[in-house]
Amino acid sequence: MRKEQKKKSRLRIIPLGGLEEIGMNITAFEYEDSIIVVDCGLAFPTDEMFGVDMVIPDTTFLQNNLDKVKAFVITHGHEDHIGALPYVLRDVNVPVYATRLTMGIIEHKLEERKMLEVTERHVVKFGETVELGKFKVEFIKTNHSIVDAAALAIYSPVGVVVHTGDFKVDYTPVFGDAIDLQRFAELGRDGVLALLCDSTNAERPGYTASEKTVGKTFDILFQEHKDTRLIIATFASNVDRVQQIINTAHKYGRKVVVEGRSMVNIIDTARELGCISIPENTLIDIDSLKNYPDSKTVIITTGSQGESMAALSRMAENTHRKIHIGPGDTVIFSSNPIPGNEKSVTNVINQLLMKGADVIFQDVHVSGHPCQEEIKLIYTLVQPKYAVPVHGEYKHLKAHEKIARELGYTSDNIFLLHSGDVLELDRSSARVNGRVQVGEVMVDGLGVGDVGNVVLRDRQHLAEDGVVLVSFAMDGSSGELVSGPEVTSRGFVYLKESDQLMDEAQAISRDVIDGCLSRGISDWGKLKSSVREELSDYFWKKTQRRPMIIPMILET
Amino acid sequence: MRKEQKKKSRLRIIPLGGLEEIGMNITAFEYEDSIIVVDCGLAFPTDEMFGVDMVIPDTTFLQNNLDKVKAFVITHGHEDHIGALPYVLRDVNVPVYATRLTMGIIEHKLEERKMLEVTERHVVKFGETVELGKFKVEFIKTNHSIVDAAALAIYSPVGVVVHTGDFKVDYTPVFGDAIDLQRFAELGRDGVLALLCDSTNAERPGYTASEKTVGKTFDILFQEHKDTRLIIATFASNVDRVQQIINTAHKYGRKVVVEGRSMVNIIDTARELGCISIPENTLIDIDSLKNYPDSKTVIITTGSQGESMAALSRMAENTHRKIHIGPGDTVIFSSNPIPGNEKSVTNVINQLLMKGADVIFQDVHVSGHPCQEEIKLIYTLVQPKYAVPVHGEYKHLKAHEKIARELGYTSDNIFLLHSGDVLELDRSSARVNGRVQVGEVMVDGLGVGDVGNVVLRDRQHLAEDGVVLVSFAMDGSSGELVSGPEVTSRGFVYLKESDQLMDEAQAISRDVIDGCLSRGISDWGKLKSSVREELSDYFWKKTQRRPMIIPMILET
Repeated sequence: MRKEQKKKSRLRIIPLGGLEEIGMNITAFEYEDSIIVVDCGLAFPTDEMFGVDMVIPDTTFLQNNLDKVKAFVITHGHEDHIGALPYVLRDVNVPVYATRLTMGIIEHKLEERKMLEVTERHVVKFGETVELGKFKVEFIKTNHSIVDAAALAIYSPVGVVVHTGDFKVDYTPVFGDAIDLQRFAELGRDGVLALLCDSTNAERPGYTASEKTVGKTFDILFQEHKDTRLIIATFASNVDRVQQIINTAHKYGRKVVVEGRSMVNIIDTARELGCISIPENTLIDIDSLKNYPDSKTVIITTGSQGESMAALSRMAENTHRKIHIGPGDTVIFSSNPIPGNEKSVTNVINQLLMKGADVIFQDVHVSGHPCQEEIKLIYTLVQPKYAVPVHGEYKHLKAHEKIARELGYTSDNIFLLHSGDVLELDRSSARVNGRVQVGEVMVDGLGVGDVGNVVLRDRQHLAEDGVVLVSFAMDGSSGELVSGPEVTSRGFVYLKESDQLMDEAQAISRDVIDGCLSRGISDWGKLKSSVREELSDYFWKKTQRRPMIIPMILET
Repeated sequence: MRKEQKKKSRLRIIPLGGLEEIGMNITAFEYEDSIIVVDCGLAFPTDEMFGVDMVIPDTTFLQNNLDKVKAFVITHGHEDHIGALPYVLRDVNVPVYATRLTMGIIEHKLEERKMLEVTERHVVKFGETVELGKFKVEFIKTNHSIVDAAALAIYSPVGVVVHTGDFKVDYTPVFGDAIDLQRFAELGRDGVLALLCDSTNAERPGYTASEKTVGKTFDILFQEHKDTRLIIATFASNVDRVQQIINTAHKYGRKVVVEGRSMVNIIDTARELGCISIPENTLIDIDSLKNYPDSKTVIITTGSQGESMAALSRMAENTHRKIHIGPGDTVIFSSNPIPGNEKSVTNVINQLLMKGADVIFQDVHVSGHPCQEEIKLIYTLVQPKYAVPVHGEYKHLKAHEKIARELGYTSDNIFLLHSGDVLELDRSSARVNGRVQVGEVMVDGLGVGDVGNVVLRDRQHLAEDGVVLVSFAMDGSSGELVSGPEVTSRGFVYLKESDQLMDEAQAISRDVIDGCLSRGISDWGKLKSSVREELSDYFWKKTQRRPMIIPMILET
């Protein structure tokens, strides 16, 4: 009995997502009868995931260990760390712990999905420690591109694990304190078993600049563009950025409109919680814009990533009902394109330029993640026994590994995990031991998980070459063809100019059916596959396209 | 009569593509009864153009003026300057003029499309001038990321227009001479009416580095990786790059394999024409790789843009039949991602890293286009009366405009054209006067132009939410429902788990049909639209998806 318990008494760190991909951050920590889960994020669909709204992690492992799961502890309020909560909480309904603004954003999401009432929630202060089964979790102040981001010190019976969350080192943050480096140092001095540290910028040398440097840039831009209206696009959740725009607007006597649903929501939440301070009479309603000269207004808007439905894209496409862009407007992108969004951002920039607007899209942004020297700083303070790079694609983890090697870590104490790997630790050793089920669950409309590989493959096929339908009716008793075949298509060829092709397809279908029937083949499955094969060959020969061909037989 | 002729006698410059987009470069020059066409390129389909292989320009303008069109004059052999030739020559069959390697690549394309025999072709030497109706065209040596690139001096009765093509200034090119700056200077001294100059890099300060600097980088990389196999991905058409890899391989005693169909083709052409020199016993067949230690081989491959079917992507995905990548391989990307390809390139890098390969993807490439100081150099040599930025998205043209303004040009003599604009010039004036038809013609398989907005919209709809088919049979005489409705779907929901949804859809369809018939509605169009509407509402309520719904009625 004692032996078995001893064998069991290891800490297991199990990333259920977030490695090998951007987004979908979720990591389970298991010790004996206790599991806590750090973050519960979504990922955005890849280009091949046609029609999919978002991707959430497969949480079978948690569902299979439901009695053990004590809580979700959340590091910060970005979608890739909280976005899957409203879905996962349906199956894994445990309390959620988060700091003030993070919880404010979570609550808004839960309300939208009617999950607020059924979810137990705890707001945690920085420095506070919560007890969750065999674990204790301390929330530590960090800096990031969203207010109230936390690192976590996770105390287990075999040692302390520090999870940085997403962070940067900002000595002069816009709101609140600088990252609590002293606490990282104390933890390090007392001994840290493992460090799970942000890898996003591990390829970049040096340090990430302070958020306040963007404030200085705004000051220069406002000075240089005193005569034009200013339209500034940035991330909805970057409250500090919005704060700095508002401060600069106030200084230069401009009124501010906040435009874009997600930004309005977050700014409202931030105001309620006191995370942003807006001077009186600065914010105005969008309908009041006309009461002020252009040179006295600023519009802060969503759409910095070229998202097709966002406010800025609608302005660029002339489909925004209230704001029309033209010469005399200066549009500032206070953002960099997230990898994959380059093309859509460029499209919006081109559209704005064609309208005659001046567009500024470089050097009005700083990252929220640590560059190489900041990563080294955290390692040097925390001095973990084991290094576990997290948060990034594999190339970022590899770059992080290289930094750790420079600091003296070796393959014995660096672990590049894959989602699903089980990292088992005790006080003096660590190894990857086994795997748990992980995966991507696609959300499409109300459907969670019903769109899988079969549906996606069909959508890809339909997207590529369209669909051809062949419908005909058979006499149930005699087995004779009594009507049809009728042939039509969508997304394959331009029907109005393809009469001949469709007529021939119909004739071929009829020949195939007649041929089958005359040879005594009456099995509907065989009839269908024969029609499919013949038509497929015919269409390929004529068009070098391979539409999806769907024969349907009616019985009379 | 004289008056009318005088009125007519202006030079008209008409970009039929290539502005506001990357690719599809084609520009007509018209003077009285003569038209010459510079370049005839394709564009790659955008993400929304499902199933489309390539995009070629609408050449209605040329077809309507067929008797005037004298020739295509081609600046260089990149797809965005020659790719549409095999298609456009079917409708506009005029002679093609190009330099040696450019023509070699064109001939290969024409042969593939069975257009070689029917196309009159003329190879032109640098410095040579060809007479084409009222025009004379001189080919001037430039440098670019492909050998044998030319600028054109186009002599018209109202003055000389210089078209740079794509170029850079390379004082130390790998093959052939440096750009003929003296000729640009002579032309400028004698007087140039307009300059059409490459805008691709107009946002970048400074100068583009010489191709030879990449050779030095290769030397360092070969020295640093003496013990591993080297796999180097670059653009198939960059013969100079391949030359430098081969030179370095030869120096370090490595055998070279060239892999990827397009690269093999172009290297073959370049060898035949003497544009590349390969030391004896350096090239080996891919099957001979096993006879040499890894440290004595280099594989030069296509796939530097993450193209899913290219050799490197197949290696990364374990689907390449002959090359398997693992620890001990060093993969070098001698390229930058073309905008829009960032994500696919990153995916390949991640896959290669996960296989244990070392991957180098930064600073092993130089651009083939002029940066700001090179653009200034050309303007300063050519001193054109009018500046016409070409080759780039609108933001590049705007950046080019800014450079021209720094050089003293004003809105009176800078023309930012849109595709289709007609720029009319005489010796002393220029203005945009009218437009001609332009557009994108989509090529899908054998179909040229048959995929238009209707087909594309259907493909987008099918991709998003799939298709639902409703088939039923009506008695032609009695107008009664005799069979069905049968309902099936593809790409909408996972059928195996959606019995109930489909059963209900069938019941609803039946109710709708019965309802219509009982109310005396027997018009098939109305029956179909009623079914479509009811099912659409039902599916939206149940799934929040909007599949394409196609009812089909058979008559018995």
